[in-house]
Amino acid sequence: MTHSVAILGASGYTGAELVRLIATHPSLRIAALSADRKAGQPMAAVFPFLRHLDLPTLVTIPEIDFGTVDLIFCALPHGTTQEVIAALPRDKRIVDLSADFRLRDLAAYQTWYGKPHAAPDLQAEAVYGLTEFYRTEIAAARLVAGTGCNAATGQYALRPLIAAGVIDLDNIIIDLKAGVSGAGRSLKENLLHAELSEGAHAYSAGGTHRHLGEFDQEFSAVAGRPVRVQFTPHLIPANRGILATVYVKGDPATVHRTLAAAYASETFLEVLPMGELPSIRHIRGSNFCHIGVTGDRIPGRAVVVATLDNLTKGSSGQAIQNANLMLGLPETDGLMLAPVFP
Amino acid sequence: MTHSVAILGASGYTGAELVRLIATHPSLRIAALSADRKAGQPMAAVFPFLRHLDLPTLVTIPEIDFGTVDLIFCALPHGTTQEVIAALPRDKRIVDLSADFRLRDLAAYQTWYGKPHAAPDLQAEAVYGLTEFYRTEIAAARLVAGTGCNAATGQYALRPLIAAGVIDLDNIIIDLKAGVSGAGRSLKENLLHAELSEGAHAYSAGGTHRHLGEFDQEFSAVAGRPVRVQFTPHLIPANRGILATVYVKGDPATVHRTLAAAYASETFLEVLPMGELPSIRHIRGSNFCHIGVTGDRIPGRAVVVATLDNLTKGSSGQAIQNANLMLGLPETDGLMLAPVFP
Amino acid sequence: MTHSVAILGASGYTGAELVRLIATHPSLRIAALSADRKAGQPMAAVFPFLRHLDLPTLVTIPEIDFGTVDLIFCALPHGTTQEVIAALPRDKRIVDLSADFRLRDLAAYQTWYGKPHAAPDLQAEAVYGLTEFYRTEIAAARLVAGTGCNAATGQYALRPLIAAGVIDLDNIIIDLKAGVSGAGRSLKENLLHAELSEGAHAYSAGGTHRHLGEFDQEFSAVAGRPVRVQFTPHLIPANRGILATVYVKGDPATVHRTLAAAYASETFLEVLPMGELPSIRHIRGSNFCHIGVTGDRIPGRAVVVATLDNLTKGSSGQAIQNANLMLGLPETDGLMLAPVFP
Amino acid sequence: MTHSVAILGASGYTGAELVRLIATHPSLRIAALSADRKAGQPMAAVFPFLRHLDLPTLVTIPEIDFGTVDLIFCALPHGTTQEVIAALPRDKRIVDLSADFRLRDLAAYQTWYGKPHAAPDLQAEAVYGLTEFYRTEIAAARLVAGTGCNAATGQYALRPLIAAGVIDLDNIIIDLKAGVSGAGRSLKENLLHAELSEGAHAYSAGGTHRHLGEFDQEFSAVAGRPVRVQFTPHLIPANRGILATVYVKGDPATVHRTLAAAYASETFLEVLPMGELPSIRHIRGSNFCHIGVTGDRIPGRAVVVATLDNLTKGSSGQAIQNANLMLGLPETDGLMLAPVFP
Repeated sequence: MTHSVAILGASGYTGAELVRLIATHPSLRIAALSADRKAGQPMAAVFPFLRHLDLPTLVTIPEIDFGTVDLIFCALPHGTTQEVIAALPRDKRIVDLSADFRLRDLAAYQTWYGKPHAAPDLQAEAVYGLTEFYRTEIAAARLVAGTGCNAATGQYALRPLIAAGVIDLDNIIIDLKAGVSGAGRSLKENLLHAELSEGAHAYSAGGTHRHLGEFDQEFSAVAGRPVRVQFTPHLIPANRGILATVYVKGDPATVHRTLAAAYASETFLEVLPMGELPSIRHIRGSNFCHIGVTGDRIPGRAVVVATLDNLTKGSSGQAIQNANLMLGLPETDGLMLAPVFP
Repeated sequence: MTHSVAILGASGYTGAELVRLIATHPSLRIAALSADRKAGQPMAAVFPFLRHLDLPTLVTIPEIDFGTVDLIFCALPHGTTQEVIAALPRDKRIVDLSADFRLRDLAAYQTWYGKPHAAPDLQAEAVYGLTEFYRTEIAAARLVAGTGCNAATGQYALRPLIAAGVIDLDNIIIDLKAGVSGAGRSLKENLLHAELSEGAHAYSAGGTHRHLGEFDQEFSAVAGRPVRVQFTPHLIPANRGILATVYVKGDPATVHRTLAAAYASETFLEVLPMGELPSIRHIRGSNFCHIGVTGDRIPGRAVVVATLDNLTKGSSGQAIQNANLMLGLPETDGLMLAPVFP
Repeated sequence: MTHSVAILGASGYTGAELVRLIATHPSLRIAALSADRKAGQPMAAVFPFLRHLDLPTLVTIPEIDFGTVDLIFCALPHGTTQEVIAALPRDKRIVDLSADFRLRDLAAYQTWYGKPHAAPDLQAEAVYGLTEFYRTEIAAARLVAGTGCNAATGQYALRPLIAAGVIDLDNIIIDLKAGVSGAGRSLKENLLHAELSEGAHAYSAGGTHRHLGEFDQEFSAVAGRPVRVQFTPHLIPANRGILATVYVKGDPATVHRTLAAAYASETFLEVLPMGELPSIRHIRGSNFCHIGVTGDRIPGRAVVVATLDNLTKGSSGQAIQNANLMLGLPETDGLMLAPVFP
Repeated sequence: MTHSVAILGASGYTGAELVRLIATHPSLRIAALSADRKAGQPMAAVFPFLRHLDLPTLVTIPEIDFGTVDLIFCALPHGTTQEVIAALPRDKRIVDLSADFRLRDLAAYQTWYGKPHAAPDLQAEAVYGLTEFYRTEIAAARLVAGTGCNAATGQYALRPLIAAGVIDLDNIIIDLKAGVSGAGRSLKENLLHAELSEGAHAYSAGGTHRHLGEFDQEFSAVAGRPVRVQFTPHLIPANRGILATVYVKGDPATVHRTLAAAYASETFLEVLPMGELPSIRHIRGSNFCHIGVTGDRIPGRAVVVATLDNLTKGSSGQAIQNANLMLGLPETDGLMLAPVFP
């Protein structure tokens, strides 16, 4: 059975990635694509790499007939999303890829995003979209809030360790290296090829990155006590992919065993053999997340390295995985594409 | 119905690309993978990006039981391929990705490859694998010789123009920009990241590149008279993709109309609207070839720009397209993956 | 003796490159730096790579006291430059890096730039800044118009050949590969790292690129008859550097000999041995231009490949070379920096 | 006064970088260049980017007449260097760029390099080459052992903090991102452009990287007690540059103040304003090291980020800085080249 979906915000990278993945999904059909400023244009004009597909022309959101739509992917910028979703038909199921509904605590939202939440009633029903840890809730949810891509990477490395109590909760450091597509299609000098290539730098350092709101919420909930991690993201000259190097205090063998056990039956989360560490280039373009563990010459220290593609497992692939659950489809439908290497 | 295939030479880039594509192919199953020097290793050790797949361990060719294999992909280096294929069971259908069986004329082979052909009887039955132009022959062939990736790009730009007689056959220049994976996994200083990135240079210039043998053979056959083109390939800092800028003398509108008509019903060959030119990044990771045409301020000059992914449409995707024909499967099976952007 | 210079437009790439080169120039001292929108900021805030230098704070042009300035580098966008220079003190010597004064014919200017020239009297005194071919005029000039970076590359490959009459003037094709810094610091989607890396595409194809105005003017003057070339620039994922592959009809040995003889005494123009072709990565960051020649299997065809760094020999290095001439300094002062490799 | 130098191992990246820097050094002259396997070739054949220089032909070491040589740069691989230097005239001053003489403790050498030291008497006289901390010893030394490039980066971030006792010595983590030229010109699959670009991965993780030997030696000496840090290097797709993100426990303001005070009079070590973090692209190609400090929302945590060019400040620039001291020249001679951006 085919399900009709609409994609709001189809002119950004996560919108385009949804289209790329749905192109070979066995049960989803794209009924509508919106992009306010590019309404009226064919998708092939905005993303020529999709020109082989027979896609609806871009429209504004009010032009969409939601009557025949089974599920809505909302890939709009954070901030504007709350109002847009508030105006959508209340009987439609929605997978949101923005940051607008990730934080259950309205005060935390205000702290990290600098303004009050505009749709607190919707927030109340939103389910956090980290699939492997919220499956039941997601399957039953009307509104699923996709996680931050950095937040997903850090959580895959750490949640089972925090849950099992095998690491020191007060000494967790996440040093993250992120490809540039995570910054979206924004026109900024530091995202120009001439300025980004051949370099690397830290950004939003010093405990200021907004994904810390997600880490705080989720890790504290898992631990049953407040947990605050250190988090330093860096931008590297790669288009896709995140590599998180996570420093923890705990027994390396136990750390590895705990992760391996937690993910033993997960299709998309692969724990490598002890001592083997993953690489961005081995998950690029796919929905897979590779996780490795090593010890150190200093006893009681472990390093967990996790990598995923920010546009796939970190956002649009995750969104489809969640949509599959919500629509009662096999969870891996449309997501078994192998990574692209080299 | 599922067909079993073997891949000889699975530790190179084209071998790995075959596995990547077959991973989501509805009717092909990998029965055996060979790699002489890496025999005994799991494929995931050689290509960790494929670790999610349940693949046979790498073996040597003699270890393979070809009894249950329906079709063999041979992704070995040129030169050694002739002997290997000569030793394979004569009732097996083979798609070869090397250069060993592309030139029908044994003297031309010797000219371009510097030694006599080692399997002239096999050469006699080999069919040139440029799918869209040899469909009937390929469907009936036992041995199909995949084209060179540069040779495919140039031919998609030029064959219909030569056939239709709309360009000057004595003034054709192909200036080609190629990503580095076309050079394979060879350990050479000029392929190191430190030496290849941030630059560009011409190689095998001055009429010396071996793919000229294919251009000569095919263009002359199409024209019914000798045709010799100029051809300068350049290496650029990209992993995948070829962009060929082809300079011809002829009426631009006629050139465009001729290409558009020739490929009107082709799934993988897309002719862009007049004046629009393609980009490598819009076909990366896919089996599509985009072709654009523009005129010049000098009347009677046209520029045709064609782009494809050397590992997909230029070799392994083409190989699967040919295998589909040989096995009676839908030609596009397993090949509708959208390009990966960004 | 030290000469004081002002740099107008110091917040762009060519302005910053001027500062980089002057940093180790024995006789130039930077007296003023202008940048309208960033006036008031220290240069280190705009370009942190220059933070080790003791530089004047950025100001607006009216704030500059030109009384003590010996020479002005004008690195402003084309279009606005004409008015700015018209308003400068008439006794100051100026090296302009924009396109505003390159075309001696006002009608040609209007054709290529789409509006009438705003300072025809200044145009009348401007000298075209291709140093090696206009030395005497530059030394005596008040206003020197720096060449286009693509235009410089093509001319170094072709001028001696056109002057010597050793190639067919009606069959010249320049296929050019350009790094991204040539597009400046403009905020455009196609210059983002995510969209430019891992690809290549042609732009301003079909005889529409503005540097054709310079080719027409210069080649026709050298030939004594109208010469129109074909010119297709491509953008490649490199920050600096241009590689021009030039297709001509003529005897390769004669072509090589003519270029080698023409540049025998030039410090910055190096003709490689016959058959050897240059690479962007061997001139990056320097004022050198490498030129190679090869023949073809088709008699009477030659390929000339020229490469230079668009920000150095193609603009700011050229500007300093011209300033050296104008100030009576050794022409190579401050310009002997070796290329940066890898 | 001009000093003659010889460079042993001129066919590697650090050898070539020495030549690049000496090309504009006011007082050094290259008398001899050695490269065993490429002896007999001109340097321009091995490194075409140096073709504008008038350099001696490559020779084997025995062919060099050391009589007229004032100082020898030894840029050979570690392991072989000990024997080579042992065989050099004992009255010659030597700057070694290898790892062979960095560890004062012979047992530590054996631990990290897996074999006994072959020249313990030379080790006894070797001075560790981290210029800013060993100036007096270097000026008087006959044999200076250049530091590891990673080791230098980490030490610039940490030495003043350890010396001042302002951080917890038992909780230091160095997460380092390194460009690929640090791996040298070695032919390895993971250094190929196709495999290194568009990704990132950790290597020599888990307390196994050999530069830990230098960290242990130096930090323990500074602290007056054993100090062992955690160290995870990562390879990123950039040619030059190292960015070290260092996590310490201590008061951020004190950390910043301590570093700023320690380096207040250093030409090449720049401490950025509090909260500002450096970028590889702002030091590329230069001898400068930029250091930034930020705090965290968790009190008592600080992050120090240091960046330098591994080929310049991390090896060949450092070597020349040391040679300047040894020869009584101004320490900054030949090293004031501005970084190359973009």
